[in-house]
Amino acid sequence: MHKLWLQSFSNEMPLLNSPEEVARWELSQFHDASFSVCLRPEMGDGFEIDGDIITGGPTGVLYGAYTALFSSLTGKKHLKMRSEPAYRLRMLDFWDNLDGSVERGYAGRSLFFDHGGLHYDPQRIRFLARLLASCGINAVCINNVNVLFEAQRLMEDLLPDVAELAGLFRPFGIRLMLSCDFALPIRHGLPTADPLDQTVQDFWRSIAEKIWNAIPDFAGFVVKADSEHRPGPFTYGRSHAEGANMLGDAVEPFGGVVVWRAFVYNCQQDWRDTTTDRPKAAYEHYMPLDGAFHDNVLLQIKNGPFDFQVREPISPLLLSLRKTHLALEFQLTQEYTGHQIDIYSMPGLFSETFAQIPRGQLSAVAAVANIGRDDNYVGHPFAALNLFAYGCMAWQPDLSPRQVTELWCHLTYPSLSASCEEKLVQLLMDSREIYEKYTAPLGLCWMVNPGFHYGPSPDGYEYQSWGTYHKADRNAVGIDRTAQGTGYVLQYPPEIQKRYADPAVCPDHLLLFFHRVPYQAVMSDGRTLIQRIYDDHFEGCEAVDAMSQTLCQIAPSLPEDDSRVCLDRMEKQKLNAREWRDVVNTFFHRLSGADDAKGRKIYD
Amino acid sequence: MHKLWLQSFSNEMPLLNSPEEVARWELSQFHDASFSVCLRPEMGDGFEIDGDIITGGPTGVLYGAYTALFSSLTGKKHLKMRSEPAYRLRMLDFWDNLDGSVERGYAGRSLFFDHGGLHYDPQRIRFLARLLASCGINAVCINNVNVLFEAQRLMEDLLPDVAELAGLFRPFGIRLMLSCDFALPIRHGLPTADPLDQTVQDFWRSIAEKIWNAIPDFAGFVVKADSEHRPGPFTYGRSHAEGANMLGDAVEPFGGVVVWRAFVYNCQQDWRDTTTDRPKAAYEHYMPLDGAFHDNVLLQIKNGPFDFQVREPISPLLLSLRKTHLALEFQLTQEYTGHQIDIYSMPGLFSETFAQIPRGQLSAVAAVANIGRDDNYVGHPFAALNLFAYGCMAWQPDLSPRQVTELWCHLTYPSLSASCEEKLVQLLMDSREIYEKYTAPLGLCWMVNPGFHYGPSPDGYEYQSWGTYHKADRNAVGIDRTAQGTGYVLQYPPEIQKRYADPAVCPDHLLLFFHRVPYQAVMSDGRTLIQRIYDDHFEGCEAVDAMSQTLCQIAPSLPEDDSRVCLDRMEKQKLNAREWRDVVNTFFHRLSGADDAKGRKIYD
Repeated sequence: MHKLWLQSFSNEMPLLNSPEEVARWELSQFHDASFSVCLRPEMGDGFEIDGDIITGGPTGVLYGAYTALFSSLTGKKHLKMRSEPAYRLRMLDFWDNLDGSVERGYAGRSLFFDHGGLHYDPQRIRFLARLLASCGINAVCINNVNVLFEAQRLMEDLLPDVAELAGLFRPFGIRLMLSCDFALPIRHGLPTADPLDQTVQDFWRSIAEKIWNAIPDFAGFVVKADSEHRPGPFTYGRSHAEGANMLGDAVEPFGGVVVWRAFVYNCQQDWRDTTTDRPKAAYEHYMPLDGAFHDNVLLQIKNGPFDFQVREPISPLLLSLRKTHLALEFQLTQEYTGHQIDIYSMPGLFSETFAQIPRGQLSAVAAVANIGRDDNYVGHPFAALNLFAYGCMAWQPDLSPRQVTELWCHLTYPSLSASCEEKLVQLLMDSREIYEKYTAPLGLCWMVNPGFHYGPSPDGYEYQSWGTYHKADRNAVGIDRTAQGTGYVLQYPPEIQKRYADPAVCPDHLLLFFHRVPYQAVMSDGRTLIQRIYDDHFEGCEAVDAMSQTLCQIAPSLPEDDSRVCLDRMEKQKLNAREWRDVVNTFFHRLSGADDAKGRKIYD
Repeated sequence: MHKLWLQSFSNEMPLLNSPEEVARWELSQFHDASFSVCLRPEMGDGFEIDGDIITGGPTGVLYGAYTALFSSLTGKKHLKMRSEPAYRLRMLDFWDNLDGSVERGYAGRSLFFDHGGLHYDPQRIRFLARLLASCGINAVCINNVNVLFEAQRLMEDLLPDVAELAGLFRPFGIRLMLSCDFALPIRHGLPTADPLDQTVQDFWRSIAEKIWNAIPDFAGFVVKADSEHRPGPFTYGRSHAEGANMLGDAVEPFGGVVVWRAFVYNCQQDWRDTTTDRPKAAYEHYMPLDGAFHDNVLLQIKNGPFDFQVREPISPLLLSLRKTHLALEFQLTQEYTGHQIDIYSMPGLFSETFAQIPRGQLSAVAAVANIGRDDNYVGHPFAALNLFAYGCMAWQPDLSPRQVTELWCHLTYPSLSASCEEKLVQLLMDSREIYEKYTAPLGLCWMVNPGFHYGPSPDGYEYQSWGTYHKADRNAVGIDRTAQGTGYVLQYPPEIQKRYADPAVCPDHLLLFFHRVPYQAVMSDGRTLIQRIYDDHFEGCEAVDAMSQTLCQIAPSLPEDDSRVCLDRMEKQKLNAREWRDVVNTFFHRLSGADDAKGRKIYD
């Protein structure tokens, strides 16, 4: 069994009952250091390390133990530190279905489900829980936010099985959540799911009671309502505050929360309609509701205004809501970023995103899991970095991408030489920008194959109903989202507006997100836009070749399985990069007629 | 139950044992005429009608009976005629899978299969057989040419069920065929499927023996080999003649035939590769094998060199093979021609195709069925015309499209007024050209949504591996397939080459199939190419609106179910036509920058 970043940890953990027991056991296995543990219940998740003494709350001692052990493994001794998490709730959302499939999953089938019910290897679940705890994650939502019919049974006859699963996570300080279907009452014979209907409220209260009876530390619900054909309060003419608060009230007596996804937009837009601009949708919908949500309701907002594209500006809603509890949502599973075939490391994304959000603005963080039944849990061995970094940075958002990448490399491949480790760290650090260069240019987004979302299709979404257009023609490309255009930029605070609204100061990697730019326009570095597109794509592809060479140097030092998988997928990534380069360059060459200044091959 | 064109026929047919019995019974039900039947075995399918005497072979009397009755129903009395079919074998190929799905089916699920086995309503099968016999079809291949795993069982444990089904078709002069998997021997534990291996030959001989034991009038096999990932002789370094002849030899003692599909091309082409031109593939592959196929092997060739596009030139292979038995294949199911939502009548296609093929060049005709479990068998009531016309014209290829359309209308809607019937005939006659105008322009093909094949996606196949490119750029569109280009045109006989090779004489509807033409090039009627593209799309869409108005006039005179389905689908066709118009016009406007001379709305 692959141990990911717990390489140096023992495999033989007995059944234990609490985070404190786990902490003590983990510490006891490392014989070159000896720690004592001191429990202070009031410290909660927090902990202090002072030399060989770890003091912390009921879960804090566990986080303290991993921190101390990771430090010890990286050669740091005599630590003196105090730590508590930046966000109380650090969630991992699985998009797993009961038939064992995983929506947007690239690491094998579900670890939890198969054949319409719970179906798992307890050993693997316990190891997963240990992995998650070791990087600070404290809640998992086990089923897809798109709650397919069967999954409703998790709150019904399958509840005892869910409770059993919760028991496997509990000693690791991890609480379970479930995605719920807003229309569940109707399945139970009620004539309506109207949140203001008393029988509906009673129904949810009784569901909550049953769940908390079975799972006393259950964390709460995740809800995707009125989004991409999911049912929701709109059906009954109610607001999302009314819908979410009704559920919030139902779980309130049990200390539960409702995580309400803000992913609401018109997914049946007419491409001819230029008055609707999808990135504006969430802000327009939720800003008027600021202050209307109850205290145990969290609004979960994706990092960008679209949907986990390779590069998006931060969602303006994350910056603007003042009286609503917010959860920031990332996507670890690489739906748009290479399907865990291509290397795309996210610490930089996490860091940049957290840096833009004022301290105190968020109550929670969430991420869509990249996990499945593959031996290494994540498909590509290096994709584990994204999971690890997410956990670490959800705890401590100001960790630098390099710090966390180095730590992950060292823990995962402890026997790597310093020079190999440095090469691997740099490869991972560079991977995001490289992926960006050979795929969609300069913030365009959505040039992927529809549905599948791997590989290029420049016009693939151009005439569809998803509100995702670039409107490339023979002269120019991009959407004007300034005040003169769709006005999207006006949703940002004034100082950010200024940066994005002026093409002269707008960061290059978002230029075509905010502006419509002629191919012959001259960019800040003196190149034309079209030349920049060509250059990025040629350079991105060359960089993958260079990355491949570096990987070949590192590979002999990696464990055999990792080496094989990495090299095999790198061959696919090279093909993918070449495909992106040529398709995007040809697409824009056909439109613009502009030749490459450097005379490189662009196909007809 | 919908009776399609047998509207005036009785529903109460008893179980009968032979085509002669069916003929006598059908005739006995019509009380305003009285025919006598005279069997002359040597006449086979052929028949004579002389007033009230029908003389014919064992199946001929049945065809004679339907001909006499159809004539009588259309008011023609005292017929004196003699007829025999142009082609001995008139096949209908079902793409039905054993799970009940139908590949490219738009008329509901399979009439034959469900849940992994035979599963049908004998009454419906018998009525289907009667329909098919009434228009002259004499063989049906019941399973998908893409033989999925389960379907292999049709030649194994499900053979008795197939034999039972054959018994339902037999009284109507219809023989069964099966699609077979070239790799079947391997499933049975043989180490190879090499056609030159003696054990493989013995295997197929024994399979054939079992089948003919169970179904003495079984007609033979249909084979899709080495095509779109299907197994075939190439795996063993053998030619298609060697593969097909091996199967031919296996069925020869039983009088069976092997219908070998010539649909072989590289479906993993690199779009950058301009030296490969998919339409050339079949000719290049099969011309060198002319004369190498045994006498009971038929090479089945699609009408065009691509794949049933809205408009293709005739396949040059159909014109060039001299020493090979040929079957011409049409596709009734409207995969690329509107999914039986849009109206697209095919008599014109059949007529034009037959007219181009010298008499005697073909041994058989085949068509992919448009049939499913829908009440009216074909989804759109008017789609029945394509089935009927195919049968009639496979018998008598020089029937005019108007003749056959009038006959179908009269038989299907006997109570329609003459003026309504004339309107309906004209609507159907015009429907093909209208569909062509609002979809892909001037022979371009493949601008459909990938996979699904309904609705527009101009660049949808442009960067894929299927060999289907238009290479539209800012200046021009189309592929040069002349001697100066890919050389495809050289596969035609000289007089046809001349017509296609010169853009000045090449028919407009194939212009962009054979030539790369600048948008500003002036066409024969004085319009530029780009203006012609715009005009066609605006006019095609307007024509659908007009068609819709006509339909509204006819609808009250149609049976209620037909009226409802037709009107409902017409609304969808109108949306589809508008979508095609706008997407294609916008696509070419973005590329060309040319404005519409008439100032109509083209979206950005």
